[in-house]
Amino acid sequence: MTRAARSATAFAPGGVGNIGPGLDILGLALDGPGDTVKAEWTDEPGIRIADPGHPELPREPERHSASLAAMAVFERVGDERCRGRGVSLTVKKQLPLSGGQGGSAASAVAGAVAVNALLGSPLDPFDLLSAALEAEEHVSGRHADNIAPALLGGIVLIRSLEPLDLVRLPVPKELLVVVARPDQQLRTVEARRVLPAEIPRAVALHQAAQVGAMVAALASNDYGLLGRAIDDRIAEPVRMALLPGFREAKRAAMDAGALGSSISGSGPTAFALVRGAEAGARVAAAMSAAYTASGQHSEVRVAKVDRAGARLIRRNQGQR
Amino acid sequence: MTRAARSATAFAPGGVGNIGPGLDILGLALDGPGDTVKAEWTDEPGIRIADPGHPELPREPERHSASLAAMAVFERVGDERCRGRGVSLTVKKQLPLSGGQGGSAASAVAGAVAVNALLGSPLDPFDLLSAALEAEEHVSGRHADNIAPALLGGIVLIRSLEPLDLVRLPVPKELLVVVARPDQQLRTVEARRVLPAEIPRAVALHQAAQVGAMVAALASNDYGLLGRAIDDRIAEPVRMALLPGFREAKRAAMDAGALGSSISGSGPTAFALVRGAEAGARVAAAMSAAYTASGQHSEVRVAKVDRAGARLIRRNQGQR
Repeated sequence: MTRAARSATAFAPGGVGNIGPGLDILGLALDGPGDTVKAEWTDEPGIRIADPGHPELPREPERHSASLAAMAVFERVGDERCRGRGVSLTVKKQLPLSGGQGGSAASAVAGAVAVNALLGSPLDPFDLLSAALEAEEHVSGRHADNIAPALLGGIVLIRSLEPLDLVRLPVPKELLVVVARPDQQLRTVEARRVLPAEIPRAVALHQAAQVGAMVAALASNDYGLLGRAIDDRIAEPVRMALLPGFREAKRAAMDAGALGSSISGSGPTAFALVRGAEAGARVAAAMSAAYTASGQHSEVRVAKVDRAGARLIRRNQGQR
Repeated sequence: MTRAARSATAFAPGGVGNIGPGLDILGLALDGPGDTVKAEWTDEPGIRIADPGHPELPREPERHSASLAAMAVFERVGDERCRGRGVSLTVKKQLPLSGGQGGSAASAVAGAVAVNALLGSPLDPFDLLSAALEAEEHVSGRHADNIAPALLGGIVLIRSLEPLDLVRLPVPKELLVVVARPDQQLRTVEARRVLPAEIPRAVALHQAAQVGAMVAALASNDYGLLGRAIDDRIAEPVRMALLPGFREAKRAAMDAGALGSSISGSGPTAFALVRGAEAGARVAAAMSAAYTASGQHSEVRVAKVDRAGARLIRRNQGQR
């Protein structure tokens, strides 16, 4: 175990949950913006939030995913390293609120990693994941498709939550992801409410086949198959109605040469998978133009898959 | 195009459909017994059956999967090579009837391949598959998880039937399959009748995750993951009631070191995946003993995955 720190700051990337047919079970992390959490010892016992990272985010520790994750880390460690002690969290939020880019997961993971470092890193990645998952569950439901890639990086399949069993999938070299966020907000809980409780068997089996095909495509660098497998018949059809402009942006992406396109997480961000930077630029321009044509401003970027996941970016030594 | 033959004989292997969670979308071919179809020109126009291969199998061409496939090949070719001409089929059946080892699919594939060879091989594998699929649809429903591996060999994922899109998956070197057939018959149509029309969302997503995990496991030679992914929560729970002794045989297989175990196709054959011949022998003995203890005779064998698929085993030249 390493020596306890005075403060520790961790970063976790945003990403794309579901990746089309992989509802709740497939996710990837993206290079670029993410959430940063600085954890510092304070005199007041318990976890508190010094800065929630955004005026619309709660300051109550039991409602912010970073502090919820910090509390879950404290619970898991549970010994004299944290008993009766206090930690203050400062969140720097680069990811959009309710944007569908895994913002709550990134805050949770960064919070868990920062506090774990503050305690001398007693928890392994498995326990960190379970702590972050507990936090995510409070704010947007029990699913690890953002949490797992935010922590581990790459593209991750969640085979099972109970027991937790993750599969890290290969990332094809030329794969890029276009993310386009229109100027809307869609809370995960609302987007989940429209999901059907029961799925016709044929649809369920088709969806399973797409997930299998995606995994096969990633393992064999088959970009064409990867695109064909982005065929979500459970969430996309019902969420489309909540996402003005999505249908047009998707069509524009496909016409511009995207391999496949769907909703990132529960939206409103749309994503498209592309092969290579040229296709990326073309698809990004097309999606942006489509949202503009539907009367909406959008933020569009082209990103690689982040392979590193959450990382400690500062750690100040010193015994308390 | 090759010269038309006087007669042609084709073999197609049996196998395991579904492979656990891959209901209708995953299948593998097995070394060992299969069905053989000999096709010969006759003077009487149309397709007829000289020998259906088993006293319980129909002699009516529109009810036997081999002749149905032959007719589908004729339709697809549709020119002077078959117009007004007649073919007689002799089926040699090594696979059990209603056994869950892909018998109807093997007969259909062997029939299609034999008749195609008789015509000078005008159809490519894609068209042969679609012809065999049409035949299988008449006798046991529209699913390609037996047809595709019987034709192509190996382990196959069916991403889509419309349009037909197949993915051949890697076969781990030490993978063996134990198949145990108790002395029962279960018709595919009956076994399909018990399947739920609607699947709870959580179950559907779990099943999709297992399919993804199986594909990942095959691609990375992860035997442990492969076993954990054999977790079918759609078909196995409802079909178990139709299959006395299955639960015990599965438990015995797992206790003896199987990676995973489930129902082969729609049963009654049970299968277990194992790593290596020693485990194979142990698991085979355990499953056999379990069926005996439940008062049933069973036929148990350990087989490799067949990588060749259907093959022409004889072709007699000669213009008619």
